[in-house]
Amino acid sequence: MRNIKLEIAYLGTNYRGMQSQPCGSTIQDVLEEFLTQVCGEKVRISASGRTDAGVHALGQVISFKTNGNIPCPNILRVAESLLPADIAVLSAKEMPEEFHARFSAKSKEYTYKINTLSGPNPFLYDRCWLLGEKLNLAKMNEAAKLLIGEKDFVAFCSTGSDSISTIRRVYKAEFSQDGDMVIFDILANGFLYHMVRNLVWSLVQVGLGKRTVAEFQKELNSPRNAFLSSPAPAGGLYLRQVNYE
Amino acid sequence: MRNIKLEIAYLGTNYRGMQSQPCGSTIQDVLEEFLTQVCGEKVRISASGRTDAGVHALGQVISFKTNGNIPCPNILRVAESLLPADIAVLSAKEMPEEFHARFSAKSKEYTYKINTLSGPNPFLYDRCWLLGEKLNLAKMNEAAKLLIGEKDFVAFCSTGSDSISTIRRVYKAEFSQDGDMVIFDILANGFLYHMVRNLVWSLVQVGLGKRTVAEFQKELNSPRNAFLSSPAPAGGLYLRQVNYE
Repeated sequence: MRNIKLEIAYLGTNYRGMQSQPCGSTIQDVLEEFLTQVCGEKVRISASGRTDAGVHALGQVISFKTNGNIPCPNILRVAESLLPADIAVLSAKEMPEEFHARFSAKSKEYTYKINTLSGPNPFLYDRCWLLGEKLNLAKMNEAAKLLIGEKDFVAFCSTGSDSISTIRRVYKAEFSQDGDMVIFDILANGFLYHMVRNLVWSLVQVGLGKRTVAEFQKELNSPRNAFLSSPAPAGGLYLRQVNYE
Repeated sequence: MRNIKLEIAYLGTNYRGMQSQPCGSTIQDVLEEFLTQVCGEKVRISASGRTDAGVHALGQVISFKTNGNIPCPNILRVAESLLPADIAVLSAKEMPEEFHARFSAKSKEYTYKINTLSGPNPFLYDRCWLLGEKLNLAKMNEAAKLLIGEKDFVAFCSTGSDSISTIRRVYKAEFSQDGDMVIFDILANGFLYHMVRNLVWSLVQVGLGKRTVAEFQKELNSPRNAFLSSPAPAGGLYLRQVNYE
């Protein structure tokens, strides 16, 4: 059997997330229907991880096994005509038997976008957090530095997670500015349920001056549900890249 | 009766255009429902002009008369909570009785965006023409210069128009480049049905080397339907600004 890896980009706005659900309308449903068609047999995919409803991907990775003999370059070409315009296949590659999109992943990078300009914006409402307030980047970066290293992130894991361990290693966590957009980049060996959006919400409180860096550090060392927080809006989150060996 | 002018921005993707239609789902329907609610009486709006299904606006202007006494700043505030996220009110202003969004307009500026990078793009598919080919900007600008002045644009008016005269005065028509995006800005005292999208389609043929500037000039002097052309995709077009006295 062939083992194929696809790199995928999608706008999450019109979907209920990556993973199949009883109510349908997921990225997985669309991809499996497409791949079943091009492979001539039922295809089930594995993704590097779930993304929630409304979350986007610039470089999601999926893998699947098939007896179908469509060449990889043809998958790309057919995808352009068969997939909806908000889902794209960026690359297709034959992999060794043992490769698995989720279990072989070594690290993942997410980007979160926050717009600081006030007022509604029909062109950005589903693509960033329309915060509309100025942020203190220096303070946010001071707090973000505390995330680096191997730590228990249980405080930033929403309930509903099925992770056994809540320990993750963060390699990079940094805010930068591009005009009115504040951009958060975080690279880690894995992420807990809602972890990036919960972190962004708390770090924005620091950036707004509603919370000190010391208070954020305390949160980081709290048990699950020790403090109240709503995850930052889904539309600001982008799965940028999944790294393998 | 009060006469109120609103400046509006919208993402056209999810609508059947500006003007009300029997099948619904237009920007006008949404705005009239909203204004009827805030004014406490049935409101009918006039727009500076129609935009087709999928066409966007950065600065559409509408006007309406009402006996309702809601202050203009409150319209803006209420709009943020009552309008869908893809339609925004940018400003609201009390006008003299004789002001009319359409009949008082002196000129309008449209922008058209063309992406030259190849491949699908889930984040741009409804916001530009995903052309995916390089364009010769110098040639396109040479052709675009031929549009300047008062001319009969009947050759670039799609059938279905209700305009009496097909003569318009173009003040500016210029291509510029921003990374992989080619941007066309056109300012005129008015536009015919599909005029910008038909012009862009023909000018892109020049940019691709499929048509010479001399051939474009011949097209410009043709009678209606003298040459075949499909309008450039709706999603690339933005009504940028409407100018009054």
